[in-house]
Amino acid sequence: MNNSEEKIIKELILEVIKKLEKSKVEVGVSNKHLHISQKDLDILYGKGYELTKLKELKQPGQYASNETITLVGSKGKLEKVRILGPVRKNTQVEISISDSFKIGVNAPLRESGKLEGSGAGKIIGPKGEVYLEEGIIIPLRHIHMSKKYADENGFKDGDSVKTKIEGKRSCILENVLVRVSEKYNLEFHIDFDEANSCLLKSGDIVEIKK
Amino acid sequence: MNNSEEKIIKELILEVIKKLEKSKVEVGVSNKHLHISQKDLDILYGKGYELTKLKELKQPGQYASNETITLVGSKGKLEKVRILGPVRKNTQVEISISDSFKIGVNAPLRESGKLEGSGAGKIIGPKGEVYLEEGIIIPLRHIHMSKKYADENGFKDGDSVKTKIEGKRSCILENVLVRVSEKYNLEFHIDFDEANSCLLKSGDIVEIKK
Repeated sequence: MNNSEEKIIKELILEVIKKLEKSKVEVGVSNKHLHISQKDLDILYGKGYELTKLKELKQPGQYASNETITLVGSKGKLEKVRILGPVRKNTQVEISISDSFKIGVNAPLRESGKLEGSGAGKIIGPKGEVYLEEGIIIPLRHIHMSKKYADENGFKDGDSVKTKIEGKRSCILENVLVRVSEKYNLEFHIDFDEANSCLLKSGDIVEIKK
Repeated sequence: MNNSEEKIIKELILEVIKKLEKSKVEVGVSNKHLHISQKDLDILYGKGYELTKLKELKQPGQYASNETITLVGSKGKLEKVRILGPVRKNTQVEISISDSFKIGVNAPLRESGKLEGSGAGKIIGPKGEVYLEEGIIIPLRHIHMSKKYADENGFKDGDSVKTKIEGKRSCILENVLVRVSEKYNLEFHIDFDEANSCLLKSGDIVEIKK
């Protein structure tokens, strides 16, 4: 084999490796949390309160704050539910099905932001409380993708894909929502019910299948 | 079409329906529970104690008893863990991954009966307590099958099959252990992590795939 043949083969192999790597995604397991409006934050933590950053999240600009609330349902409560920053237009509480059974909240499985007719409950902070008529959801599993990644790999916002999980509880998860934005990094979000059911933890790598 | 042709077609259709139905299995969601030896029952409930039946289970001869215990791990405890009867040779406690995190028990994912080196913890009853050096497991999902069903459908004890779950959290669960016995009825056993992850409840019907 001459030098130019070797170079061509090397480039081909690198391309294949790149393609294989491209179908992998890192798992992020979401615990119960909420996004909060400034209006509700004012009531729970005091007028003009600003969230303080505990830890940056993988999605650019998003962070876990030091602030937590108590979520109360018809049968019980969840304490230390962490607020993720920055503040949003509407308060949205995200819990798992296990959580919803535990505290007696009838929360639907929903895409983030689709809050009409979603679960009701009370959120309590150190300075006050708010009764949410709606806003509590069980988030649909989803993959965040940058616009660049989506374009290069033939995905678009709203696509439904599958993920392949290996291991003792190996499975194929279907109905995985694709969410594309300039602001996103590639990450597969599931909750603790799904993580435990698949023996997954944050940082694990799984395969995206179309 | 004459009568004999009609009869042949009817029989063919019935055969196809039978085949389709045969690939379906009813889901049974297992909550945390234990099987107990008479020796341990004697300590927890008093010498010569006999379990009392609360409810028959789908597997012949098996029942949920009125008796419960408290399971204690390194970080917490689970109360009202139900004893399933009749008594067995060895005490075996079955919990979910969520349970294991909650109470701090390092339990492996195991087939029923394979207890060597499994999780340790304390079980407490009204009359006494036992420290289990081993015996706590997270049960592998499995399908109970009668010998007749297995023979007719080409399964054997120890097979690994898949199940197809429909719905908003549709998925294919792989590595489903087949357990065949004269004493079994057809039933697919999963725990609450798996049930919530797949939006399943006891009595739901799913498909077995080879």
